[in-house]
Amino acid sequence: MAKFEAALQAWRLLLGPARVLTAPDQLAAYMASTAASPVAPLAVLRPLSHGEVVAVVRSAGEFDIPLYPLSTGRNWGYGDANPCGPGQVIVDLGGMNRILHLERDLAYAVIEPGVTQAQLAGHLAEKQLPLWMDCTGAGPDTSLVGNILERGFGHTPYGNRMLHIAGMRIVLANGDTLETGFAHFAHASAAHLYPYGVGPWLDGLFTQSNFGIVTSLGFWLMPQTEVVSHMVASVATFDGIAAVVDALRPLRMDGTLSSVVHIGNDLRVLSGGMVFPSALAPQGPPLPPHLRAELCRNAGIGAWTVSAALYGRPAQVADARRAMRAAIGRLATLRFIDERGLALGSLAARLMGQGRLGARLSAQVELGRSLLNMNRGIPDGRFLAGAYWRRRGGLPPGFPRGANPARDGCGMMWLAPVLPMRGADLLQVHALVEPVFATHGFDLFETFSMINERALGGVLTICFDQEDAAEVARARLCYDAAFARLMAAGYIPYRVGPQSMKALDSGHDSYWSTVARIKAALDPQHIIAPGRYQPR
Amino acid sequence: MAKFEAALQAWRLLLGPARVLTAPDQLAAYMASTAASPVAPLAVLRPLSHGEVVAVVRSAGEFDIPLYPLSTGRNWGYGDANPCGPGQVIVDLGGMNRILHLERDLAYAVIEPGVTQAQLAGHLAEKQLPLWMDCTGAGPDTSLVGNILERGFGHTPYGNRMLHIAGMRIVLANGDTLETGFAHFAHASAAHLYPYGVGPWLDGLFTQSNFGIVTSLGFWLMPQTEVVSHMVASVATFDGIAAVVDALRPLRMDGTLSSVVHIGNDLRVLSGGMVFPSALAPQGPPLPPHLRAELCRNAGIGAWTVSAALYGRPAQVADARRAMRAAIGRLATLRFIDERGLALGSLAARLMGQGRLGARLSAQVELGRSLLNMNRGIPDGRFLAGAYWRRRGGLPPGFPRGANPARDGCGMMWLAPVLPMRGADLLQVHALVEPVFATHGFDLFETFSMINERALGGVLTICFDQEDAAEVARARLCYDAAFARLMAAGYIPYRVGPQSMKALDSGHDSYWSTVARIKAALDPQHIIAPGRYQPR
Repeated sequence: MAKFEAALQAWRLLLGPARVLTAPDQLAAYMASTAASPVAPLAVLRPLSHGEVVAVVRSAGEFDIPLYPLSTGRNWGYGDANPCGPGQVIVDLGGMNRILHLERDLAYAVIEPGVTQAQLAGHLAEKQLPLWMDCTGAGPDTSLVGNILERGFGHTPYGNRMLHIAGMRIVLANGDTLETGFAHFAHASAAHLYPYGVGPWLDGLFTQSNFGIVTSLGFWLMPQTEVVSHMVASVATFDGIAAVVDALRPLRMDGTLSSVVHIGNDLRVLSGGMVFPSALAPQGPPLPPHLRAELCRNAGIGAWTVSAALYGRPAQVADARRAMRAAIGRLATLRFIDERGLALGSLAARLMGQGRLGARLSAQVELGRSLLNMNRGIPDGRFLAGAYWRRRGGLPPGFPRGANPARDGCGMMWLAPVLPMRGADLLQVHALVEPVFATHGFDLFETFSMINERALGGVLTICFDQEDAAEVARARLCYDAAFARLMAAGYIPYRVGPQSMKALDSGHDSYWSTVARIKAALDPQHIIAPGRYQPR
Repeated sequence: MAKFEAALQAWRLLLGPARVLTAPDQLAAYMASTAASPVAPLAVLRPLSHGEVVAVVRSAGEFDIPLYPLSTGRNWGYGDANPCGPGQVIVDLGGMNRILHLERDLAYAVIEPGVTQAQLAGHLAEKQLPLWMDCTGAGPDTSLVGNILERGFGHTPYGNRMLHIAGMRIVLANGDTLETGFAHFAHASAAHLYPYGVGPWLDGLFTQSNFGIVTSLGFWLMPQTEVVSHMVASVATFDGIAAVVDALRPLRMDGTLSSVVHIGNDLRVLSGGMVFPSALAPQGPPLPPHLRAELCRNAGIGAWTVSAALYGRPAQVADARRAMRAAIGRLATLRFIDERGLALGSLAARLMGQGRLGARLSAQVELGRSLLNMNRGIPDGRFLAGAYWRRRGGLPPGFPRGANPARDGCGMMWLAPVLPMRGADLLQVHALVEPVFATHGFDLFETFSMINERALGGVLTICFDQEDAAEVARARLCYDAAFARLMAAGYIPYRVGPQSMKALDSGHDSYWSTVARIKAALDPQHIIAPGRYQPR
């Protein structure tokens, strides 16, 4: 512990005492855990510059103390702000929140890890630049860099985020600064315009890994289009989704659907507007079938809801709409939401006054606006509502303002299998996990997103009551059982929380031994995030 | 040398004597060099399976003999089939030419390194699959895998090839087999559908590197579209190209131009149909201005020719054509080539008979068909003609059948700077290299390709007469001078030949020390391709 005290002393000199947190209440904020498995950091450091990160890493090496870097620490459902294991010092990069560069014609930004979705979106609006960023449903206050380094995906044509980054600046465990792409060449003109550079392309190494600390990132922005039209397709029956997936695949592949398409089941959509109705179902989850059916009927929700956006010039969007109708018009009920429709709806709602119908229309218009905003990179906290499904207090006052599922005590774990973009695979994944959720007594929230042209990214949510120890225990068993079934069937997750990192390694897989050898070469002391996506 | 003899003995036992080449005439075929700087291999091994590659690598480690892997060795202008240095044994993977898997609905193939462009294109045609592959202008006999691992680019919407691969199988220097993406998990359903897998994304490491030998690759195919329309835009004046680039950029960025757009200068286009006219210019290159102007006038070639393809449903292509006319209709002369136009042209040429006009129209129809074929992934050797510009014998008999610029003794070196997609940068790159080419007495062939939505990939060709020692020496000086000027101005190459690999390292660049540390971790004996994209 003398070593740790000496390190703290060095860090206090370096950062000033206010940016070295050790008080229990300060650390507690980082321990909040949607998985109900908080891990205490030894301390929290808050550097404000690349140079400070270099100095922190060098001293951590000297004192042999492992670090755990965070962007804003809002990795909800996948570990939150928790280190991967005990005995680590958090490096909170949230204060490094500068937009270092913004280029209009070539449409990119260079950003630090603390830059939030709301911050960059607001900046673009304020500067009146004709550019949109891609955003996720994780709310306004999440980090762009943090999500990208976890290989998250968004909602726009730039939603496959790994395709839209170029030029990373990284602090390695030995304190060296590594710039990827062309950025390490003097005066490189295409540092943030061409990702690969010349020589081995290293960027992928620094995603889902513990090989370095990324301190800035080139992030491509999308030129605004004349028209955006949000499509909502409602599929009445459970099995009906298979044909819809197969009919949409060619349109996703040929670019008619250039954006990430999200497919949610009824519960996923319901949970966006309500929490578990304990008064109507006092026995707890899962929701009884008749009640589920009634709630869906009242809300006008089909078994599945497909959500996508069409972008382009008017003629392009009109053609794309025709193609959508031709492909799935007989399999689903289609609605298209655009600015004009929202304005009309808003007017109609005002005319209807404050009665039940007017309020309902008004709520629909609000939701439509949120969806259309997401398509244009304007984040919205409302899409976090699902996390609160089993929270005893329901949605906190003022929701979604300042929503933070971890701090608010939401119980939530995500399973994220990747599957071939085929209806049969969707049904198969459902068939694998549905009985597991039923046995353990949980509602099964499902989304399947067309994360590229050939694969669906599933997100299956286990929502549980953190205040009920038995439910927490059941949630873990449910997670483990579903995880094991999916892995055995070859539906491997695209991303996991710390609880599953070891389970990714069968023990005789040369992928993980290769990862271990690279780790040993770049960080022989295991200073950076030991255990993170590194089972050996 | 006893060690080498022992290794040969082991390899002969392993592969059979016929697949261990040591005879001088056998090795000579691998020494052919477009750069006029042949490097002799110690021997050539021709494994036919992944297992044989593993065994070859293990024994190379035992005997401590470096290996140099090739796919088909047609890396013209960038090192051909030559090892990076002396004392290496070539591992020629050309015999590993199986199409391991082909999936129609999800549109991908899994291929070995020996699979050529013509082979896969022919296979798709034979099976009547509604899929196109991306191809390059390097001719029918080049390897797809070889080009992809060099990060080459093609001509279709899948021309940014790094975006369309998933799942590599690699032999590491210790003989381990590494599978990337999800492929290393048992029964993985999305092994070739989602590139990143879970954990660090390693694929980039095995491009432009010497970290392993790739023995198979998942390669995405493009669903055929109803319409393909090839656009040729002729820009009359040299400076006129800048406005065209700036006007096309938004259309490339918004996906109207989804394919790689190629921009060639007059000489590049001229060289596709003729070699240097020594009879008219006996003093040698560069082509005298009046002659250049006259040749362009006769062939109807402007200062720049822009070549692109539009894909989609009829309404989409019609809209895209309108957008192209609106953007550059006043800056360039546009022509669109499609199947119908070619059929009409072909008919007209036949009606005109065998006179001069008929022959000229017929040649134009042929060229149009080749261009349209490239847009559909059908390779054509005619685009190699430029390499023969300074070859004394001109185009070999039967060209392009079996064309092989290295074996045919063409002198050619490529400089491939990446630049921001801006007209001003194109002019700047030209201004930097033009005087260098003039001083050294070479024609300057230029192409600039929109290799992604934000960058141009320049390819500047130095064509020289390999039989003229003075011209060879001048070509090297020209290359070095142009390379240095481009680097100093921040126009870094996307790819280099072996002659420039050391020049990429300033000596105090942590990118290259990181590369060296990874190499040491994965291949401490430096068994695989020492020196390849590895200056330290």
